[in-house]
Amino acid sequence: MIKLGIIGYGYWGPNIVRNFMEAEGATVKAVSDTRPERLKLLQSRYPAIETMTEPDALFADPEIDAVAVVTPVSTHYELAKRALQADKHVLLEKPFTETSAQGQELLNEAEKRGLVIMVDHTFVYTGAVRKIKELVESGELGDIYYYDSVRVNLGLFQHDVNVVWDLAVHDLSILEYIYPGKPVAVSATGTAHVPGSPEDVAYLTLFYDNQMISHIHVNWLSPVKVRRTLVGGSHKMVVFDDLNPSEKIKIYDKGISLSRSPESIDQVYKMLIAYRSGDMWAPRIAHSEALRVEAHHFIDCIENGTQPIASGESGLRVVRILEAASESMKNQGQPVKL
Amino acid sequence: MIKLGIIGYGYWGPNIVRNFMEAEGATVKAVSDTRPERLKLLQSRYPAIETMTEPDALFADPEIDAVAVVTPVSTHYELAKRALQADKHVLLEKPFTETSAQGQELLNEAEKRGLVIMVDHTFVYTGAVRKIKELVESGELGDIYYYDSVRVNLGLFQHDVNVVWDLAVHDLSILEYIYPGKPVAVSATGTAHVPGSPEDVAYLTLFYDNQMISHIHVNWLSPVKVRRTLVGGSHKMVVFDDLNPSEKIKIYDKGISLSRSPESIDQVYKMLIAYRSGDMWAPRIAHSEALRVEAHHFIDCIENGTQPIASGESGLRVVRILEAASESMKNQGQPVKL
Amino acid sequence: MIKLGIIGYGYWGPNIVRNFMEAEGATVKAVSDTRPERLKLLQSRYPAIETMTEPDALFADPEIDAVAVVTPVSTHYELAKRALQADKHVLLEKPFTETSAQGQELLNEAEKRGLVIMVDHTFVYTGAVRKIKELVESGELGDIYYYDSVRVNLGLFQHDVNVVWDLAVHDLSILEYIYPGKPVAVSATGTAHVPGSPEDVAYLTLFYDNQMISHIHVNWLSPVKVRRTLVGGSHKMVVFDDLNPSEKIKIYDKGISLSRSPESIDQVYKMLIAYRSGDMWAPRIAHSEALRVEAHHFIDCIENGTQPIASGESGLRVVRILEAASESMKNQGQPVKL
Amino acid sequence: MIKLGIIGYGYWGPNIVRNFMEAEGATVKAVSDTRPERLKLLQSRYPAIETMTEPDALFADPEIDAVAVVTPVSTHYELAKRALQADKHVLLEKPFTETSAQGQELLNEAEKRGLVIMVDHTFVYTGAVRKIKELVESGELGDIYYYDSVRVNLGLFQHDVNVVWDLAVHDLSILEYIYPGKPVAVSATGTAHVPGSPEDVAYLTLFYDNQMISHIHVNWLSPVKVRRTLVGGSHKMVVFDDLNPSEKIKIYDKGISLSRSPESIDQVYKMLIAYRSGDMWAPRIAHSEALRVEAHHFIDCIENGTQPIASGESGLRVVRILEAASESMKNQGQPVKL
Repeated sequence: MIKLGIIGYGYWGPNIVRNFMEAEGATVKAVSDTRPERLKLLQSRYPAIETMTEPDALFADPEIDAVAVVTPVSTHYELAKRALQADKHVLLEKPFTETSAQGQELLNEAEKRGLVIMVDHTFVYTGAVRKIKELVESGELGDIYYYDSVRVNLGLFQHDVNVVWDLAVHDLSILEYIYPGKPVAVSATGTAHVPGSPEDVAYLTLFYDNQMISHIHVNWLSPVKVRRTLVGGSHKMVVFDDLNPSEKIKIYDKGISLSRSPESIDQVYKMLIAYRSGDMWAPRIAHSEALRVEAHHFIDCIENGTQPIASGESGLRVVRILEAASESMKNQGQPVKL
Repeated sequence: MIKLGIIGYGYWGPNIVRNFMEAEGATVKAVSDTRPERLKLLQSRYPAIETMTEPDALFADPEIDAVAVVTPVSTHYELAKRALQADKHVLLEKPFTETSAQGQELLNEAEKRGLVIMVDHTFVYTGAVRKIKELVESGELGDIYYYDSVRVNLGLFQHDVNVVWDLAVHDLSILEYIYPGKPVAVSATGTAHVPGSPEDVAYLTLFYDNQMISHIHVNWLSPVKVRRTLVGGSHKMVVFDDLNPSEKIKIYDKGISLSRSPESIDQVYKMLIAYRSGDMWAPRIAHSEALRVEAHHFIDCIENGTQPIASGESGLRVVRILEAASESMKNQGQPVKL
Repeated sequence: MIKLGIIGYGYWGPNIVRNFMEAEGATVKAVSDTRPERLKLLQSRYPAIETMTEPDALFADPEIDAVAVVTPVSTHYELAKRALQADKHVLLEKPFTETSAQGQELLNEAEKRGLVIMVDHTFVYTGAVRKIKELVESGELGDIYYYDSVRVNLGLFQHDVNVVWDLAVHDLSILEYIYPGKPVAVSATGTAHVPGSPEDVAYLTLFYDNQMISHIHVNWLSPVKVRRTLVGGSHKMVVFDDLNPSEKIKIYDKGISLSRSPESIDQVYKMLIAYRSGDMWAPRIAHSEALRVEAHHFIDCIENGTQPIASGESGLRVVRILEAASESMKNQGQPVKL
Repeated sequence: MIKLGIIGYGYWGPNIVRNFMEAEGATVKAVSDTRPERLKLLQSRYPAIETMTEPDALFADPEIDAVAVVTPVSTHYELAKRALQADKHVLLEKPFTETSAQGQELLNEAEKRGLVIMVDHTFVYTGAVRKIKELVESGELGDIYYYDSVRVNLGLFQHDVNVVWDLAVHDLSILEYIYPGKPVAVSATGTAHVPGSPEDVAYLTLFYDNQMISHIHVNWLSPVKVRRTLVGGSHKMVVFDDLNPSEKIKIYDKGISLSRSPESIDQVYKMLIAYRSGDMWAPRIAHSEALRVEAHHFIDCIENGTQPIASGESGLRVVRILEAASESMKNQGQPVKL
């Protein structure tokens, strides 16, 4: 039985607590939050969980095996480091850390101590994203041409992070998971419309060392909510609409066919481009809650030494892209090498 | 009665011919196309129109007042220049010219001779785009925060132009029309997936000297067709969905409200951001064919000296942005000043 | 402080318990369910609530003021009668009773004892249905021409009731609330596709003593979920799409205009029908949970003698229509007077 | 070369003329319409076609092999009879005739003379309806449970026919084509909202001698346009949305599974109903214009004696259902045997 301590009971913390409480082989022993009213709410739901406004007792508790840090990113490094130094396995909310230097230090500490460090990239545990990975890996899509994602709505302004660190992190974590290649450069543009607030509209382009291109569009000021991702391949193409309750993934047997003209020597270099327009198919997607799958996976990593799907390394790579995007955004899209 | 000569009877030419034939105060006297089979098709529809494979006779005909050039962009400069030199008014298919130098030369020639030169930016004559301009100008949207457009589908590969020159030109012409400010820099990214073919996926960001930002996403390799533009303002926001047959324009009384906190001296600089979520309104949009409106406008410019809505100057400004975008795209988004 | 006893903790019971627990001025003292595993689940959530497999102790408890009956309809009459005889106010799950005779008896008993009896017609407490009632009452829609509702999905087969008693009851309760007239006849058609199971597809038409017509389409065997109601009026028309998360209610300024031709004596009786096509408007709808509003309303009725919106009389009228519809359905649509 | 005479050049006539003009093996020799302005329009498009305000010369012309009657239904019988008596093959606009007696007489006349008589049930020539027929015939859908169609919009009021004869005729013709069984009774309800005008909202239920049920909902007073048909089968279900430009037909591997419980003798009659929720598939549908396919089919029937898909018999069966529906509608849904 893995016993967890949870730091942070704000927006996302209740989901973490509930899923670890319901997971077989685990329980939540203590929850820390600086706000007494949040702890009061927790106690009304789970009278048996210990509560505290400072996490010291949680780190000091030898019965606690693992700590989930579900606080703003500015506190991730400090809290995760203390947890690791207290020999606890760590699950860190996304984004992993505020800087890549911090992330690297956490990885080193975890490795030195043989502890699991995992980042809460929830999307990689959804049925829809797993299905996309399956389609990419099986070759069914052919060569991957592009990943294009729109993630916009009238969102809460964050005080400590801009819209890229808040929303684009989801797409970067999905790309980490579904696509084997790693980006080599990033160009990002964006603007802040509220004086003194971070960027609320942003666009990222990721370049690879092949013809693949990724683009992520995030916006806190959109009147409509859109969560749509296109994955274009040479054989088939996928539309992932996360707001469609019944058909999240559609696979189109559409695209272009290339052939070299065989007719004459003159045309030997001429590509013939023909369009294909075929069937569409929406596979049934598993409906299990992603966080539930993730909780079981974290337990499995601790107990059996399984390699985390969203490892600390993955969290760190995403932070490196976020840093580069922020730098590029300050220079109107000037590309930054990764 | 204005008599027109039309050069080019391919994809768009038939629409030009039909609309000038049906417009009061104008008629089509001659059509030129290098392909005899296209001329044969024209003759089956309009036996009275003169046809020719070379436009020389058309330029030489003193009865022809104006020429519409509806050919690939690579031929625009040459054909328009000959038309102007033959003292014909000119309507040029978009994009205006292959280079801004060519465009400038055509403008000079037209001005010298007192001739009308107009670019076929069809969208600015649609009821939907006119409604958006009205909303921007009346101040109903407040300060304009962003223009964001997605224009993707499984499109025909062009041999002579990339997807930016083919599709983004529409959004640039709409921006020319609805927004008074002019962009000061552009960052563009994109990729070609077919060896030897031009870019088929591209993203443009336009910067202005205020908080406004424009983004245009064009793609010839999308399995689904999307034509959706968001215009975000400080008061209201617009969604323009050109594929929605009955509700093309939706106006959302949604956004953020800003106020300075009055509570304490410490907070004097702190902006309070509150969300507004109000009604949505879809005004009835006029259904008249844009090209019909445009044909009458061209006739009006010739007869009454009216200033063209989509003037040669406007066409030239769009070409300058297209040139800058192509340059930026070669350098992975490195911004180019305008 | 009103103390409630709840009978039934199956699909809907947990929502009833939660809302009365969270309502100010009320609490849940005891819950009865014949299934021990349901009571165990309740206890894990609300350790302080008393549980029992038989409701006798609940009826006998003098501290309990009111009882909510959240069980299959076949048990409504018996349980509600015992509750009333124990001098408890009663909230009955829909449909009110299995027969109109039972319903009448419950009304008589409640009236004799001066007790509140209310039916759980949840939809009438939603922001969307309240908005429709407002539009009807204000005259904004003009004369009401028709109510047309589609309520279909792949639904759970009920063993004791057919699809009419399961789903059409929602529309009948909405009609009770929004439209002042009462139907005078009903014609219903439907079929059972599973031998030994009740009808799974059905269609109801309600007739009134004016030109109004209502139609309700219910289906447990539809591959897609649809929840769409049209309300057509002589001035405006409403589309209520309960699955649209952001624009549940759309009001169309569309319809027909009638005028008598003034031109000649011969045409004095000729109506001229012209079409109007105007704006569409989607008002912001309150998002509060309907059951929460309903719980507060039930408390208000008990404490202040307020007349219930969904009174026992309303529940009984709906049962009478359901009975007539079942009879009509057995005779292939033969109309039944109400 | 089959030579046609066309009677009627109103709303639908131009489509008939165009398709027979473009069809190989046929041409239009003469067109008759009582309105000179319609003939003038025709002549501007097809100067070679003879025009006349009365069809006498058309019937008398020995060169004309076949006549298409594209006039209001009240004139169908008279015109078709004259055509047959002049030994012309006949294509009749839908609905076939005003009464079934008229329809029977036309069939007799055509049979006696060995002439082709065909009804313009256009939908049966669309790729979508052909695909549905294929799915029904191949057994892929299993037993057919229901056909449910919604065909509503803000429509033109007809003076001579009600909404059933105007719109439900489409669904009746589709059912004729895709489903082998014939209805045995019909129950219909509906109302007229404009004094002196025919019914503008109507609902039809068709009963068969098995568990199949069909329902058709037609409305000229709907603020939104809907063209959606569900075909539910025991194995799979189809949604046909005629307004969806790219995915008209969706096939759902969803439904219920039935099995008898094997556990005990007591349960031997108990059906276990389990839900299946599987993939969805949208096959590519041929885009050819239905009327073009129909024109070629009519020519083939004349030249090769092929049996018409939408034969006069089929047109007559549809008229019989329309008559029965009108009768039922007058009696508030009282079923009428067929």
